[in-house]
Amino acid sequence: MNTGSQTSIKLEGVSLIGNGRGELSDRTFTAFNPRTGEAIAPDFHGASHTEVERAAGLANDASREFAATSNEERARFLRSIADHLEDSKSDIVDRASEESGLPPARFEGELGRAAGQIRMFANVVEEGSWVDARIDRAEPDREPLPKPDVRSLLTPLGPVAVFCASNFPIAFSVAGGDTASALAAGCPVVVIAHSAHPGTAELAGLAIRKAVEQANLPEGVFSLLFSDDYSAGQALVRDPNISAVGFTGSRKGGTALAEIASKRERPIPVFAEMSAVNPVFLLKDALEERIESIAEGLFGSFTLGFGQFCTKPGIVALPEASMDEFGELLGEQVKAAGPVPLLTRGIHDAFVSGVKKRGCEVSGNSANDDGFYAETSFARVSATDFLANPRLANEIFGPTALVVGYDSTEQLYEVAESFEGQLTATVHGTAAELRKHEALVGVLSEIAGRIVFNGFPTGVEVCGAMVHGGPFPATTDARTTSVGKRAIERFTKLTAFQGFPQESLPDALKDDNPLHINRIED
Amino acid sequence: MNTGSQTSIKLEGVSLIGNGRGELSDRTFTAFNPRTGEAIAPDFHGASHTEVERAAGLANDASREFAATSNEERARFLRSIADHLEDSKSDIVDRASEESGLPPARFEGELGRAAGQIRMFANVVEEGSWVDARIDRAEPDREPLPKPDVRSLLTPLGPVAVFCASNFPIAFSVAGGDTASALAAGCPVVVIAHSAHPGTAELAGLAIRKAVEQANLPEGVFSLLFSDDYSAGQALVRDPNISAVGFTGSRKGGTALAEIASKRERPIPVFAEMSAVNPVFLLKDALEERIESIAEGLFGSFTLGFGQFCTKPGIVALPEASMDEFGELLGEQVKAAGPVPLLTRGIHDAFVSGVKKRGCEVSGNSANDDGFYAETSFARVSATDFLANPRLANEIFGPTALVVGYDSTEQLYEVAESFEGQLTATVHGTAAELRKHEALVGVLSEIAGRIVFNGFPTGVEVCGAMVHGGPFPATTDARTTSVGKRAIERFTKLTAFQGFPQESLPDALKDDNPLHINRIED
Repeated sequence: MNTGSQTSIKLEGVSLIGNGRGELSDRTFTAFNPRTGEAIAPDFHGASHTEVERAAGLANDASREFAATSNEERARFLRSIADHLEDSKSDIVDRASEESGLPPARFEGELGRAAGQIRMFANVVEEGSWVDARIDRAEPDREPLPKPDVRSLLTPLGPVAVFCASNFPIAFSVAGGDTASALAAGCPVVVIAHSAHPGTAELAGLAIRKAVEQANLPEGVFSLLFSDDYSAGQALVRDPNISAVGFTGSRKGGTALAEIASKRERPIPVFAEMSAVNPVFLLKDALEERIESIAEGLFGSFTLGFGQFCTKPGIVALPEASMDEFGELLGEQVKAAGPVPLLTRGIHDAFVSGVKKRGCEVSGNSANDDGFYAETSFARVSATDFLANPRLANEIFGPTALVVGYDSTEQLYEVAESFEGQLTATVHGTAAELRKHEALVGVLSEIAGRIVFNGFPTGVEVCGAMVHGGPFPATTDARTTSVGKRAIERFTKLTAFQGFPQESLPDALKDDNPLHINRIED
Repeated sequence: MNTGSQTSIKLEGVSLIGNGRGELSDRTFTAFNPRTGEAIAPDFHGASHTEVERAAGLANDASREFAATSNEERARFLRSIADHLEDSKSDIVDRASEESGLPPARFEGELGRAAGQIRMFANVVEEGSWVDARIDRAEPDREPLPKPDVRSLLTPLGPVAVFCASNFPIAFSVAGGDTASALAAGCPVVVIAHSAHPGTAELAGLAIRKAVEQANLPEGVFSLLFSDDYSAGQALVRDPNISAVGFTGSRKGGTALAEIASKRERPIPVFAEMSAVNPVFLLKDALEERIESIAEGLFGSFTLGFGQFCTKPGIVALPEASMDEFGELLGEQVKAAGPVPLLTRGIHDAFVSGVKKRGCEVSGNSANDDGFYAETSFARVSATDFLANPRLANEIFGPTALVVGYDSTEQLYEVAESFEGQLTATVHGTAAELRKHEALVGVLSEIAGRIVFNGFPTGVEVCGAMVHGGPFPATTDARTTSVGKRAIERFTKLTAFQGFPQESLPDALKDDNPLHINRIED
């Protein structure tokens, strides 16, 4: 076993449960270095069902007090998390790189993104309008019946279970968007660390715990559980004290959790972001104008993070006539890329077998067998064959893409109509082509959460308007997003107050609007 | 068989599928007059699975064209539905009264409510801000990466299946809130009529069909299917062309549909409003001030519509010391009430057996056995016994209530904490008591969608701030409401446009805001 990089904080390898630690159980596992295939110290100890129950119970105990914190208190708490995360930056970046096989520079960026996202939610909470306050005043003299005073707003839903993603050890994991938005909404969080990067998880978890302590919040506001199998996560989703689930991962994992959640005595919502091939549609005139830059951009996008992005453009449709030229341009880049390490042995094996079944042109003859290395690749198929083989539309997680040649506008539309729900869909064309293909945009707006024009889908901007969501199987709820300001709305319920005296209303609903928020009145 | 009231429109008893009619199948059934138990003409013909498929297919065919209608077109269409509904008012009121056993005056009000609700959605759509447009403009010079232009809004989700409620033949049925909000959102609707009031359904369906024709919309925008068993409804929810479900009915029915929807190849959301006992908490000082008016108001509320409201206050907690006086006041009114006809034989039988098991004081010795008559009643129990017998907290649909005596503030809180999710919770107290019991409001805001102070939960105002929703089992989604302006948001997906030229953006997202709507920018 590799001793692991020297972090200034010593990793203990046991769950963080409130302000305590889990047991040194004998269900141990380690992270692996994807570049060598070697285990990395220390051992991590899987949480028992009793520990899962304790974390969920503490979250429930903390729920009311945390929900009652003021906007200022929650904003300060979130900013303190971001600060502590940045304080641990070099430890986190080093460990994340070691556990993922991705270069440190990637994690400099990802940590900045995570901290920025947490601060964005701090601003959202501090500003306060996110509660969507609506006020209908009484009309006591209305005939035939008086109109009551009714006011409503979004309130915290209760403890949230968050599952970390394999591919974003920081920004979609312990201190990622699900945790940040749930805490911002006023919900305690119990995180299930991803078994591929438990060390990164522990470091991020300690940063959040420090912020909980400094804010004098009840300890159950945050817990972090380690596990290398499904049992702890499933037990957490079943736990009666949990009220919602945030998940980023595979279709199999997300649908399994959704099924468990729906079979509880009290079913709870599961916001799972799962699977997408993020189709890209290249139109004729755009290719004539800039086929090289499109091929280059596309290659950069489908190999970013070694192809392990949920928004990776996995399928590219273009006119049959441009296939050879485009294939040559891609082929050169693929050849230059060489083998890259994938996140886990499981991801590596699924990738290699997926690529083999699809019949891809790979960049070299053999992958490096020492670690989890695999070859960058792409494959070509006619739209006719693509449409005849639905399995070709399945996601292959990793650095590969499928190029589909359509022979007519009709076939372009057939290909577009053939897709299941997607996180994104992309069109490259001239402005005139986009106008001409208004109907294509219409089709894509039904299947995808975000439509990109003349850009690439990777690189999900964290902003108010962002939609990182989409119809099933992209996610389990097409009305929401897991990135951007709207993500906070997932972890709420609607609550109305009827006939309440001013002093007993939440501040957000009082006549004099003491929080100075935007509201919809009458 | 009773020939039925003479409606000016002749009922045909066959499904309305697009602009055609269903077959004269041999799966026939009739409505019954709850006051006599007699069948009412004509025979209604249950829809076959082929007909279900045809209705869903037409809805899908209509989906894009309908989604693309302008705000003005949709508003005009909705107002035309309201007008046609009012044109059929006397037919609908007479038939609804005959099919439900409820007095005509009730349906004068209910039709007005339904028409008003449809016009409210017309106003919402015409105004246009409901799409929640958000705009983040590009920052091409941002370092290290340029910020893309991202804009997003809510878009129509696709065809919606709507299930009619037994207890609101007009306002929660064919032309009720689910249909109005789905059409307003731009989604075609396929309605499953309730078998207890198919004649009312046909009349309302014809009114909507007239509006579809006059607006020159594709016929699939609206269909109405008859059925007296679960098969048509289940087939509709399974149909791949259906994208969401609106349901008002029993917990059993709602959870069964949610399960079917979750097991589809493409799971879809089910917005089911199901079950509630709507607890009422009476505090000491309020009872001292006005025990008579509270008893009178409560009796009026739990017997409104013969106790067949989803917001019926079914359980009332008050200080043990006031139990005798309150019981006497309720007893007098219950005695004066006499037997009342319930909506269906099934509801009657479930009510009679529920009351018997609970051990209620009924108003007389025997119900009128000719129709579906049952006695108005109430029961008393100590909080200790109530807490020891969870089945006492089950809903009994019909004119009965359970009065629970608590002996301490602690026990009051224990009772409050014991409830499952509710549509409403009500507190009667002085303003000082409400302040003192802030924590009680906190508990209730976790379990209920709406908290009423010094009022009664029946009579759900149709307005912007209304929440007719709540945690499971009150509904399947505590983030939404089936009454009020927010109901439209259920039938949408979020869609973002990145890097789009102005002319290819939806109007709601264009720089110059041609629709003059409220948006959140940057």
